[in-house]
Amino acid sequence: MSKKASIGVTGLAVMGRNLARNLARHGHTVALHNRSEARTRSLVEQFGDEGDFIPAYSAQEFVDALERPRQIVIMVQAGGPTDAVIEEFAPLLEPGDVIVDAGNAHFADTRRREAALRERGLHFVGTGVSGGEEGALNGPSIMPGGSKESYESLGPLFEDISAKVDGEPCCTHIGADGAGHFVKMVHNGIEYADMQLIAESFDLLRGAAGYSPAEAAEVFSTWNTGRLESYLIEITADVLKHVDSASGKPFVDIVEDAAEQKGTGRWTVQIGLDLGVPISGIAEAVFARSLSGSKPLRAAARGLAGPARTPLKGAALETFADDVEQALYASKVVAYAQGFNQIQAGATEYGWDIDLGAVASIWRGGCIIRAKFLNDITAAYAEDSALPTLLTAGAFRKAVEDAQDSWRSVISTAVQLGIPTPGFSTALAYYDGLRADRLPAALVQGQRDYFGAHTYRRVDREGSFHTLWATDSRDEVGA
Amino acid sequence: MSKKASIGVTGLAVMGRNLARNLARHGHTVALHNRSEARTRSLVEQFGDEGDFIPAYSAQEFVDALERPRQIVIMVQAGGPTDAVIEEFAPLLEPGDVIVDAGNAHFADTRRREAALRERGLHFVGTGVSGGEEGALNGPSIMPGGSKESYESLGPLFEDISAKVDGEPCCTHIGADGAGHFVKMVHNGIEYADMQLIAESFDLLRGAAGYSPAEAAEVFSTWNTGRLESYLIEITADVLKHVDSASGKPFVDIVEDAAEQKGTGRWTVQIGLDLGVPISGIAEAVFARSLSGSKPLRAAARGLAGPARTPLKGAALETFADDVEQALYASKVVAYAQGFNQIQAGATEYGWDIDLGAVASIWRGGCIIRAKFLNDITAAYAEDSALPTLLTAGAFRKAVEDAQDSWRSVISTAVQLGIPTPGFSTALAYYDGLRADRLPAALVQGQRDYFGAHTYRRVDREGSFHTLWATDSRDEVGA
Repeated sequence: MSKKASIGVTGLAVMGRNLARNLARHGHTVALHNRSEARTRSLVEQFGDEGDFIPAYSAQEFVDALERPRQIVIMVQAGGPTDAVIEEFAPLLEPGDVIVDAGNAHFADTRRREAALRERGLHFVGTGVSGGEEGALNGPSIMPGGSKESYESLGPLFEDISAKVDGEPCCTHIGADGAGHFVKMVHNGIEYADMQLIAESFDLLRGAAGYSPAEAAEVFSTWNTGRLESYLIEITADVLKHVDSASGKPFVDIVEDAAEQKGTGRWTVQIGLDLGVPISGIAEAVFARSLSGSKPLRAAARGLAGPARTPLKGAALETFADDVEQALYASKVVAYAQGFNQIQAGATEYGWDIDLGAVASIWRGGCIIRAKFLNDITAAYAEDSALPTLLTAGAFRKAVEDAQDSWRSVISTAVQLGIPTPGFSTALAYYDGLRADRLPAALVQGQRDYFGAHTYRRVDREGSFHTLWATDSRDEVGA
Repeated sequence: MSKKASIGVTGLAVMGRNLARNLARHGHTVALHNRSEARTRSLVEQFGDEGDFIPAYSAQEFVDALERPRQIVIMVQAGGPTDAVIEEFAPLLEPGDVIVDAGNAHFADTRRREAALRERGLHFVGTGVSGGEEGALNGPSIMPGGSKESYESLGPLFEDISAKVDGEPCCTHIGADGAGHFVKMVHNGIEYADMQLIAESFDLLRGAAGYSPAEAAEVFSTWNTGRLESYLIEITADVLKHVDSASGKPFVDIVEDAAEQKGTGRWTVQIGLDLGVPISGIAEAVFARSLSGSKPLRAAARGLAGPARTPLKGAALETFADDVEQALYASKVVAYAQGFNQIQAGATEYGWDIDLGAVASIWRGGCIIRAKFLNDITAAYAEDSALPTLLTAGAFRKAVEDAQDSWRSVISTAVQLGIPTPGFSTALAYYDGLRADRLPAALVQGQRDYFGAHTYRRVDREGSFHTLWATDSRDEVGA
């Protein structure tokens, strides 16, 4: 009897191929399958010496090559193609076998698929995999959902191939059914916010203080030695210092300034709205990308008057980069606070038992938002697993309070000079809104009661109240 | 043979009852139907002398009471109940008859229902009706979608009962299938934004310049005599000057500052995201309501440090109310510009032929956002029906450019004093973003190409490009 594979990968485009190689490099025998045979053959030809592969050229052959419980990782396009592949394999599997969707599925699809396959006795694991092609090959951050039982067989393999930070794997069981894809979605939403904040920081350094891209790159490199140390800051420095070979100009000046998106940021905001979680930092980042790509609008608006841009001078100029660092740090704390609140709200809504500290911990390596900073988030949730907001956690509270003078000053400068900072501005508005004793939402409630008889609650008494606005302005109980 | 009704209303809660009374008061014979008989009887008992009603106590009786083509207005809860009532009546109707859903349905549901009923030879009209209970009775703004053919019979009735401004009815055929409910949805989204901006204005007057609610009410009353003249500004003054009878305190001080919402604002943002339209003003308004109602977060964050709040003095104090008026006006133009862009994008996506000037025109009366200001929007689209953004239309362009110094100064003051102005801030960021020559989205594109090989476009050449970041930083064509 020939040796069986401990796991199989179907869908051998670059992500699937790299995951399979990563598994094989870690000593696991990997069954391979792809709709067209060519990719399977080329993987074995090119990388066959990296480990034990069992190429299979039919669904049945693929399934037969696997140890029980069979574990099949699907890495195909989200949506219809994923459903098609599930339907191809599910009839060939037996109770207890595990199907893993490692693509970027919407968590609601994952919930639907998990429920359907559970009825057929199969485990379905939707898993987030972050880190792109390079991460898939050399160690991604892995966020599997699904049953605890499925994690017993799958977990050791995934922990094995994940990124490691301080010897700990960047993989943990997130929670039931769609929890893994939900957390991956929020990860991407936070990534949008983080990138937008970095982009605004560069725009400020250049627009308000006259830094060239190369000089700004130096600033980011310096920041990367401190509390902002992270993959995104590191690659920002690389991008900013890159000179376009064709034109000899700074790379950022020859790139079209229309940011594209693939949809997970948009999902994050849409789901945040459904859950009633204010995730304005992510929303502004998504809108900033849409705005940048709104060519007819931008063409029409280009001549609109702005203020005179007088670059900063003297002391203000000297401290400006430090001020921006403070503003970036504080805004980033807000973005993460909002994102973690969304995970909390999702866990409550869908009954997931999610360890927020563990989520921060497995994001420290492999994924796009990997950062030193995440250690502080893990520490915050270790101290209080039900922390209402990261903003009040010891380390962050003090840092943000200390940063606020700079934060306010930077935004004020941007507003006066006409440099758009939607990310910084919404983060500060969130901070000021959350800490406010009273919000003008009371006026909004009054307006709603006036035009729609929607009633309001009082600060001094229980119950619903309505005022007879149109007649005699009497205040009444419970309409 | 007894007289037949020209229209019927089923669902006689307050909105349905008031629509029926409005129709009867205008001389139309109205058939009445309700799931429970009591409401039908009480309408006839209480208001029977207002016009000709034909009460019906079964679906068949109701349908038989109607002239051909039969026109049935459904005014029940959105979702399942609406589907149930449609299924109750559709089998009793004949080709050419018209079913009208006058509730707050999601436009996607309206599209689905319209397609299904069209196959059965029936017209289905999803119509927005704005103005609340009082509007339904005395003249609402009406936004019907559906076929042009259905509008031939329905239009004259609806125009008859709608609000009138300068002798013109606040009702027009919006476009096919879900166009009416789509436009009503955006109307509500704009309403959220408008209310948030007014709330921020009040918060600023009070927090930065020490105005009492009664003094602020005076300011709003003054504004209501100028370019901001509108229903929302008018009622804001009423709400702010209202003194709570139980406590003797200003009304806004005894109302719980947690703003509620019913979902159409959230829908607007979710659909805006799908369409890729930056509608950040509406989004921030929705998030501000969510934030205000996030009790555990606010309780935890209440002690977070803010800046010292030194109220304004001298010249800054003297001009502050005027500055806020300018900021409010400019931010409002942005909110409407974003909303109208969303309608344009919806029309393109779903193939609706929507006259944007007519939309602004029918919002001038009956509905919550009725305002003098809308005349300028109608004029702007009369001049250029394909205007890319309201911000560049003659009247608005100059007004916003003139307002910008005050706008910047007010936001700067808010930022320095720790008063949250997410609505004002995002509006200005949008203005500055749209008019920017270059946005740091170029850096975002560089980051995306770096970590995900997503490629980028160049300003100087056609095509997709990828840079080999990890290896030798060569810039390559089309990866």
